[in-house]
Amino acid sequence: MSDLVVHTFNWVPDMARGYVRDLRVRWALEEAGLPYRVVGVPIRERGAEHFAHQPFGQVPWLTDGDISIFETGAILLYLAECCEKLMPKDAQGRAHVLEWSIAALNSVETASLPWAQFKLENDSSQSPGKRQIDIFFAGRLGHMEKVLATREWLAGTFSIADIQMADALRVVDSLDGLTEHPACKRYVARATARPAFVKAHADQLAHFAKAD
Amino acid sequence: MSDLVVHTFNWVPDMARGYVRDLRVRWALEEAGLPYRVVGVPIRERGAEHFAHQPFGQVPWLTDGDISIFETGAILLYLAECCEKLMPKDAQGRAHVLEWSIAALNSVETASLPWAQFKLENDSSQSPGKRQIDIFFAGRLGHMEKVLATREWLAGTFSIADIQMADALRVVDSLDGLTEHPACKRYVARATARPAFVKAHADQLAHFAKAD
Repeated sequence: MSDLVVHTFNWVPDMARGYVRDLRVRWALEEAGLPYRVVGVPIRERGAEHFAHQPFGQVPWLTDGDISIFETGAILLYLAECCEKLMPKDAQGRAHVLEWSIAALNSVETASLPWAQFKLENDSSQSPGKRQIDIFFAGRLGHMEKVLATREWLAGTFSIADIQMADALRVVDSLDGLTEHPACKRYVARATARPAFVKAHADQLAHFAKAD
Repeated sequence: MSDLVVHTFNWVPDMARGYVRDLRVRWALEEAGLPYRVVGVPIRERGAEHFAHQPFGQVPWLTDGDISIFETGAILLYLAECCEKLMPKDAQGRAHVLEWSIAALNSVETASLPWAQFKLENDSSQSPGKRQIDIFFAGRLGHMEKVLATREWLAGTFSIADIQMADALRVVDSLDGLTEHPACKRYVARATARPAFVKAHADQLAHFAKAD
């Protein structure tokens, strides 16, 4: 790790503040105690330079000297390689962090993101496709509730898996989706009480407020 | 790597055959030339043992001696650590494989899976939430089309990122979702023409046919 730079938008609308994904990267960096800088890029007029670093035109991406990497989940895995506070070094511990990190991104968010899209639109329609999304989402939350009722952190000790799962469930909680899932709700509260989350969250809000 | 065992269902309905996610694990193992066994577990009456290995009650999971790991994306990362054919060893090459693997799982499939849920239900309703899902999906495919128009494989050489992205897009293609995205379509054709995919796919079909 040489000169870690988190690239995020220099401004986003109010409703997105506190939820832009550079938060997960900031959170991991704060947990690890690694020094870093944050650089803002325009949210409008995303140029070729932006797409060269992030082909979907999203944020964040991380640069580490000459290395550039996008996708929050990939950035967290990249950082975790260098830092035992983010991922244990033993083989089964690593396997647990990998499986729960991907579970957050591909088992939970593939259900929670479409659910949130309907919720954000105040769309309570009940067409067959929407019913499938609701069933899928309820199933995934039901399984997470059982898991989180029995453990403090997903991989035994706190890791990048918790950053991703807790943040995914925090979005659901902000849309009142955890009212029947107390273990999930307590897990979100436990994770977001960590000093590293509190600092990362406050820093993101301050970063976007500067541009107002 | 000691005794690699892929655990999948011992039977699934016809429409799922060729698409169950043990396919991605088989494909990676075939690319790597690693020996492995496949063990079938019941799709009905999934017991405590199943949930101990896969907390969502899904398949596959992999065992490697005493180590057990679930989530296809995590299994592929686990295998890739040991095999340069699945992920290059240099830092920027690794970063590319990580970012494109996660892009497949968290940028493309968070859009393509909900789109597919509506498609599979023959649900063409156009409520506000559904419109968001369509916009999200079209955006992601549009960006992938630009990327795939300029390169053969996502991370320079073939890697686990291609297994995941090509398989995600193969599902879209099977539901006629790539008719306006020729570069994506050619990429799926290129990836699925690889001998390792052909063998993995045939082996999965044969595995499920045994149970009929």
